[in-house]
Amino acid sequence: MSHSGYKGKGLEFLLRYNLEIGNQVKVQSDSLYSGVIMPRYEHNDDHHIVLKLKNGYNIGIEIDEIKKIEIESTTGAKIEHLSQPQPNPKLPRILLLSTGGTIASRIDYRTGAVTPALTAAELNATVPELSRIANIDTEVLFSEYSENLLPEHWVKIAEKLDSYSRSEYDGIIVAHGTDTMQYTASALAFSLSGYPKPVTLVGSQRSSDRPSSDAALNLIAATRFIIETHIPGIFVVMHKNSSDEEISCHWATRVRKNHTSKRDAFKTIGGEPAYVVKEKSIEKNNLFNVSSREYTPRIKFDNRIMLVKYYPGLDPRIIDYAIKSGYKGVIFEGTGLGHVGKIMYDLIEKAKKKGLFLGMTSQCIDGMVRMTVYDSGRDLLNLGVIPLRNMIPETAVVKAMWALANSKDSDEMTKIMKENIALEFSD
Amino acid sequence: MSHSGYKGKGLEFLLRYNLEIGNQVKVQSDSLYSGVIMPRYEHNDDHHIVLKLKNGYNIGIEIDEIKKIEIESTTGAKIEHLSQPQPNPKLPRILLLSTGGTIASRIDYRTGAVTPALTAAELNATVPELSRIANIDTEVLFSEYSENLLPEHWVKIAEKLDSYSRSEYDGIIVAHGTDTMQYTASALAFSLSGYPKPVTLVGSQRSSDRPSSDAALNLIAATRFIIETHIPGIFVVMHKNSSDEEISCHWATRVRKNHTSKRDAFKTIGGEPAYVVKEKSIEKNNLFNVSSREYTPRIKFDNRIMLVKYYPGLDPRIIDYAIKSGYKGVIFEGTGLGHVGKIMYDLIEKAKKKGLFLGMTSQCIDGMVRMTVYDSGRDLLNLGVIPLRNMIPETAVVKAMWALANSKDSDEMTKIMKENIALEFSD
Repeated sequence: MSHSGYKGKGLEFLLRYNLEIGNQVKVQSDSLYSGVIMPRYEHNDDHHIVLKLKNGYNIGIEIDEIKKIEIESTTGAKIEHLSQPQPNPKLPRILLLSTGGTIASRIDYRTGAVTPALTAAELNATVPELSRIANIDTEVLFSEYSENLLPEHWVKIAEKLDSYSRSEYDGIIVAHGTDTMQYTASALAFSLSGYPKPVTLVGSQRSSDRPSSDAALNLIAATRFIIETHIPGIFVVMHKNSSDEEISCHWATRVRKNHTSKRDAFKTIGGEPAYVVKEKSIEKNNLFNVSSREYTPRIKFDNRIMLVKYYPGLDPRIIDYAIKSGYKGVIFEGTGLGHVGKIMYDLIEKAKKKGLFLGMTSQCIDGMVRMTVYDSGRDLLNLGVIPLRNMIPETAVVKAMWALANSKDSDEMTKIMKENIALEFSD
Repeated sequence: MSHSGYKGKGLEFLLRYNLEIGNQVKVQSDSLYSGVIMPRYEHNDDHHIVLKLKNGYNIGIEIDEIKKIEIESTTGAKIEHLSQPQPNPKLPRILLLSTGGTIASRIDYRTGAVTPALTAAELNATVPELSRIANIDTEVLFSEYSENLLPEHWVKIAEKLDSYSRSEYDGIIVAHGTDTMQYTASALAFSLSGYPKPVTLVGSQRSSDRPSSDAALNLIAATRFIIETHIPGIFVVMHKNSSDEEISCHWATRVRKNHTSKRDAFKTIGGEPAYVVKEKSIEKNNLFNVSSREYTPRIKFDNRIMLVKYYPGLDPRIIDYAIKSGYKGVIFEGTGLGHVGKIMYDLIEKAKKKGLFLGMTSQCIDGMVRMTVYDSGRDLLNLGVIPLRNMIPETAVVKAMWALANSKDSDEMTKIMKENIALEFSD
């Protein structure tokens, strides 16, 4: 019997009622719930059980509030026999790398457990349209909520993609949680600069067992983008608006998650998405000029970079902490055109003298940092702060981690930070 | 002769050519510039002079690059004799408090110096329409770029407004730099909760000597809003779009500067602006329900609040630093629905045990924090992190500083943080 993650009171409760993960149960507490018992994570408390409801959401139910619980089916845990799609040698070949996230969560629901998701058979069962347009091989790299991904996960994804750079795949889809998808996308865009195939990161804002799920359409659009355009580079493919008619392909470094829950949460900052996948066509936006680059993988990150968002009342000693803790760079999210209060100047000067890279972005998110307009900006320029133009703050943090790992000193890091490598400067 | 802020090489240069602040000069360096010599601030280097150009922008010119400089007029510095508007007893009375910022920068240009700005006479000269609709008294509180404002400035503004709460003014306009206008607006909304008159914060994105300036229209709209609606509360009044036809009045706690330079940089997050000032009408948006409150000024802030924006690779020890440095609260800008990586959990647990207030907002900015949907959110709830619904992160930092100063312990602070005081929760 599996009780993964349950301990203390929670485990006791399951054992008492002879329950295990994957059982379909009906629970009477403040209300009547029906769902599949889910596994729990290490850090959880021991006084809830977690159910995956039919609507796709997990809920925690307080054990002390449970008045009645009964098993509806013990077989919720069994994987249905899914048919493997038949490869069609005439169709393009695509690899789908799964890293976890909501897009993979239907599988949790079906099996009642958090198992590596999106096998070819499961994908075929979920989005049967895909097998009619491409042969999709699937590979599970890991299975994590994206908020738990770290730079070492970026390295794993990048190395895996690098290993396929000369493969026969037309392109690669990376299924990813949406929480940090933009960070991973930027990390891949820098570390795999010039990658010769299309790579599309795809997530979903609603799990695919919910009626409003965006998973299937995002997956179909990511596939169509690869096989219909063959444009090399790293893209994020998500709904353009609340309808199902248009899916955006964003340049990796210019995309931002701008809403917690909407299907069209992802927006290109400072312009329109690179491409829009419509029912019968894929339209290119000519605003951004992307020059083709030689493929030069540099798959290293160094996280000794601090993001400092300025606000009135911020204690400047945070910069002293950065210096003393061995950070090698600070990315500021300044106000307006790229400012911080003059209360910060002394410690900024000190950090510069200690050799830290100091870069300025704006918490406005959209628009150019212009540090020559006001005295505040000129002061910061004189102190050695580097204006990062219209690079969005999250992209700047990722780029700084990558530039730090790939340069021998602060001068080389500054040079890399100023170079437009993956459209992080779009003007 | 005035050489304020010039030192070393810069001062030497001015003395050598018999120049002073306010002189209109023509300078040949990499290009030919014509402008007024501006004063400099303490922290500046000594190898530039600063000119205010006709287009309203200041530029720094490297002294070593100057090939030729000649005085076009020494009288740029003289304040023209401006006519004082005649008070009209039939018109409503408004007080304009000036705190600095671009909206006051035309005066810099006219006088060639950074002097307290927006006297009644200057205002009358700049925006003559105003004296036809209201009698506007002016008072200069201070003259700072808003990036240099600190919580003690919020206190000064709030105390000044408090002193006028029972005055005969119909309302008060606060002229303010745009960089931190949203922070000041939130600070006033919390500390002057229930203020009985309309208070409109007004800034401009382009100085009023530029053809595209938004200063005059924003001032007129702020005035009209006060005298035509008499709606009490704190509002931010700025352009709604790039045309001059509509000006938005935003609720103080829901507004955000979302672009570094556009005139319509300010947006209400999670909805439309509270009011839109049009040429012939002022339209109310009924989306938000604001209940009237008793006026209870609580003008105190405690800045021992740290804003932690989560990103992959963030070193969790920042939380240890917060604990050890005596911070009393952390506002997280989490990912997605309100998450941080599980790498943070141990130190979050420690911070909670030490009594720090821990609040969760989303770096998505728009949308609700919902921490019951995924395990990550439930884990954080179990660790004692308080979900701050759809409060925007910058507002949450200000509110936390205010709640901390106005509560005797962490429980009371939590209670205040959860209470909807000034529409910081809009759902």
